[in-house]
Amino acid sequence: MTSTAAAPPPRATYRRLSVEKRRAQLLLAALGLFAHRAPDEVSLDEVAAAAGVSRPLVYRYFPGGRQQLYEAALGSAADELKLCFTEPQVGPPTERVARVLDRYLRFVDEHDAGFSALLRGGSVAETSRTTTIVDGVRRAAAEEILHHLGRVGGDGAPPPGPRLRMMVRSWIASVEAASLIWLDERKQPSAAELRGWLVDHLIALLTATAATDPETATVVRDLLALEAAEGPAGRLAERVIPVVADAAHLLPPAPGSH
Amino acid sequence: MTSTAAAPPPRATYRRLSVEKRRAQLLLAALGLFAHRAPDEVSLDEVAAAAGVSRPLVYRYFPGGRQQLYEAALGSAADELKLCFTEPQVGPPTERVARVLDRYLRFVDEHDAGFSALLRGGSVAETSRTTTIVDGVRRAAAEEILHHLGRVGGDGAPPPGPRLRMMVRSWIASVEAASLIWLDERKQPSAAELRGWLVDHLIALLTATAATDPETATVVRDLLALEAAEGPAGRLAERVIPVVADAAHLLPPAPGSH
Repeated sequence: MTSTAAAPPPRATYRRLSVEKRRAQLLLAALGLFAHRAPDEVSLDEVAAAAGVSRPLVYRYFPGGRQQLYEAALGSAADELKLCFTEPQVGPPTERVARVLDRYLRFVDEHDAGFSALLRGGSVAETSRTTTIVDGVRRAAAEEILHHLGRVGGDGAPPPGPRLRMMVRSWIASVEAASLIWLDERKQPSAAELRGWLVDHLIALLTATAATDPETATVVRDLLALEAAEGPAGRLAERVIPVVADAAHLLPPAPGSH
Repeated sequence: MTSTAAAPPPRATYRRLSVEKRRAQLLLAALGLFAHRAPDEVSLDEVAAAAGVSRPLVYRYFPGGRQQLYEAALGSAADELKLCFTEPQVGPPTERVARVLDRYLRFVDEHDAGFSALLRGGSVAETSRTTTIVDGVRRAAAEEILHHLGRVGGDGAPPPGPRLRMMVRSWIASVEAASLIWLDERKQPSAAELRGWLVDHLIALLTATAATDPETATVVRDLLALEAAEGPAGRLAERVIPVVADAAHLLPPAPGSH
């Protein structure tokens, strides 16, 4: 049903629904444009055209114009990304992280240019509000990883210590960096190969941190007990051993060998 | 010697020197302020006061005002940081990286609030020009690390492959993230402890990447051959072995053990 200026206003419940639907439609059109281009390159006219509405209508819903629309689209993409992180606490943790990374890399693939522009910085569309949205996603990712490492949300589990938390946040930063490089390099290697390497990276980082942090050592022992030989940790161990085999000069003498 | 409006202009060579000195003095004052505060919080009046000059004089040298001064100060800090990366090609590579990290963390310590504000984003002072300066520093850091891994600048060394390059850039991103967390956590743990962990992280990441990338496997073999038992790689191996000792179920059966 189309309305004209002279038509009586619809009943509140109908109008309310229509407002929400229209807003969602505009956001969807905006997201489609912001996903593949830098925010500065998307005009409000294009959003209006993509949604099949007039420019003044876009302004009625987003009086702050492109910036408000960009921030709303970003918030909506952030919510979508946070949903990608949700993974049941079942099976070996490295395989759960692999599934989360698969969904994350699919998101990166689908929002390529917008993802790059946002994280690279230097756009006038970036403000303390957009930074807060991105930081919220990073925080959610860290909580989810700590959760799968048995350090958040378990019954009576103590809160994670600073070293383990720093480790997880550092790994997330390097996942982000790797995603940006992956986009620059025309999505090479394949997403599956990149995901495998990022899981290896997490296992390696956990193990190295376990060397000096007792809490992380407990996490690694618990995690390795849940792993299977054919899982990510087993495959990594199998392939690393030949590389380090020549470095016996670095190891302490075996007990009784002197 | 102070000059008045009525004084004759000094000879060109003198005036030129004085211009450069004055500019350097203003930059130094600006750097001191931008190091410990977000760019939006520093006023041109403060820069003028810190340099002991008038506000119009600051404008004469930096007609673009605070933004131009900020970008010039950032460029000068970037040059200083790049100098920190320079390290002779002598001794085990992990110890060279440790020395580079010591200088880097001292720089982070000395530019704490400015470093945070710049890398956190969301400030209006950040533009595509400031992003370019920061990216230049990251690129210089990656080249220096690849250099110490024997992959850049050596006689006839082939250029590093995409996986090794991605690995080094990911590690640099996580060093940045760890530095920001370190500043947030009031510079805890000590810089020496953080540096030790970051070196461990690089060794672990190299080793994990060697599992699937033949070039990195060669780099790791060459690197481990240069390491001593009491060096970073040896100490890491010694402390990691007890943590992974219980995970024999992940390893392939030893030859002849079945």
